[in-house]
Amino acid sequence: MTTTETWEFDDVSAVHTVSPGVRRAELTEGWDMGGVPNGGYLLAVAVRALADETGRPDPLTVTCHYVTPARLGPVEIQTSVIRAAHRHTTATALVTQDDARVAFVVATLTDLSRAPASRSFAALAPPDLPAPEDCILVQPVEGLANSPPPITTKVELRLRPEDVGFAFGEPHGRAEMMGWASFADGRPPDTLSLPVFADAFPPTVFNAGYAIGWMPTLELTLHIRKRPAPGPLSCAFKTNLVSGGYLEIDGNIFDGNKEAVAMSRQLAVVPRTRT
Amino acid sequence: MTTTETWEFDDVSAVHTVSPGVRRAELTEGWDMGGVPNGGYLLAVAVRALADETGRPDPLTVTCHYVTPARLGPVEIQTSVIRAAHRHTTATALVTQDDARVAFVVATLTDLSRAPASRSFAALAPPDLPAPEDCILVQPVEGLANSPPPITTKVELRLRPEDVGFAFGEPHGRAEMMGWASFADGRPPDTLSLPVFADAFPPTVFNAGYAIGWMPTLELTLHIRKRPAPGPLSCAFKTNLVSGGYLEIDGNIFDGNKEAVAMSRQLAVVPRTRT
Repeated sequence: MTTTETWEFDDVSAVHTVSPGVRRAELTEGWDMGGVPNGGYLLAVAVRALADETGRPDPLTVTCHYVTPARLGPVEIQTSVIRAAHRHTTATALVTQDDARVAFVVATLTDLSRAPASRSFAALAPPDLPAPEDCILVQPVEGLANSPPPITTKVELRLRPEDVGFAFGEPHGRAEMMGWASFADGRPPDTLSLPVFADAFPPTVFNAGYAIGWMPTLELTLHIRKRPAPGPLSCAFKTNLVSGGYLEIDGNIFDGNKEAVAMSRQLAVVPRTRT
Repeated sequence: MTTTETWEFDDVSAVHTVSPGVRRAELTEGWDMGGVPNGGYLLAVAVRALADETGRPDPLTVTCHYVTPARLGPVEIQTSVIRAAHRHTTATALVTQDDARVAFVVATLTDLSRAPASRSFAALAPPDLPAPEDCILVQPVEGLANSPPPITTKVELRLRPEDVGFAFGEPHGRAEMMGWASFADGRPPDTLSLPVFADAFPPTVFNAGYAIGWMPTLELTLHIRKRPAPGPLSCAFKTNLVSGGYLEIDGNIFDGNKEAVAMSRQLAVVPRTRT
């Protein structure tokens, strides 16, 4: 890697200031789920605008409400600082397309390289995964009705073998989805790109026998706790509750040093039919 | 209970419209932690303003960023609707005191009584608690340095006996805090009051040997999945990760029918000293 090398994620998540607090970006083909930009990718674009606006390099806690499905193409991000304090800045980003509101983000950002040393405690550990080469690479299959979406050509997912049963009509019955994730072009993960990984895996409940299909995310919250070390991320997603037509998906993401870098939770809609 | 009976929570969380999108409330003594209004109580007031503004009775997913410690006394809530759709409305609430911003809330609200029937799935169960009368009632003790805060006179907490060890210098070492919670005056819980219960318990990490003291919440997200049945709520809080000076606290709240009604997650700051 040289300093002049560019990675695809940096291009497709770039934001350009057009006026104070207003930035534009281009939601790019390939980073989508059947034409709809991946929610994590959309969030990463908004977070980049917020890092730019606040001058804080690391999102610490980020929440996105997805209010209308976005489309590929240009997007405008209006940012607003709620409060800038000594260590943290809280700010919002309203994402619009042709004046239609598609998402609203609130985040508190900081500089994680200046995190104080503190006694740490972990009641969580990386998932017990086979080596990446012994996991199942997820890739689009032409002509297949439920083919993995285009974003899997940009974000390389290698699923724990037992978690691909759903694709063959043999879900194991637990609402879990685990595996390795990395950028296909080798770009190392960083705090600005973690939102992509938090929303790239197939829904957990496919493995609990729910029909394969679109499960729109209403809200996604991500805590980013550490700048990731290089290497593939090991990721564990689990659903604890499906009820009233909604499901939650909890994710834990670990870096190449097996340290926890992020925790995610989203609330999504279970389609009314086919479940 | 008659229809003319009033409950204290309804009084202290009441919001009064002063102009379109602007409401006032009074953060009331007794619902505080040593003079600072309880974060869940502050959030409940904002959520009440949002339910009022949107006409949707139930908060479904709510996130609050606490940007400055609030004080007891008058508070102003400015609401703004991001998008009103068929089933959900997303809106924001900015909470200020004397023009200083203290909190920012974004929520998606709905009508949970119209939730579609869907196949449900639960990988979580109520905590295994002794009967309320066999748990330890938390109450302020005059003159005690680390006395339970005033809000415990309004929200009755009965902790699992093994989880009160921290108060006697004998924490069990696990970052857990479990018990029963109810309003002291007998008001039944509802979706508008659940934020109070999500933030009323002592921090989990007191039981992992962290020093007893103030751990300011940066952000709290609450998913409310069901209108609670009457009776005390059984609540389980757990921390999975303390690192870089932050801790997350996850909560699961179950109603009198032993059904999950809410899931919470907050990010808080570990004090730099005394840990």
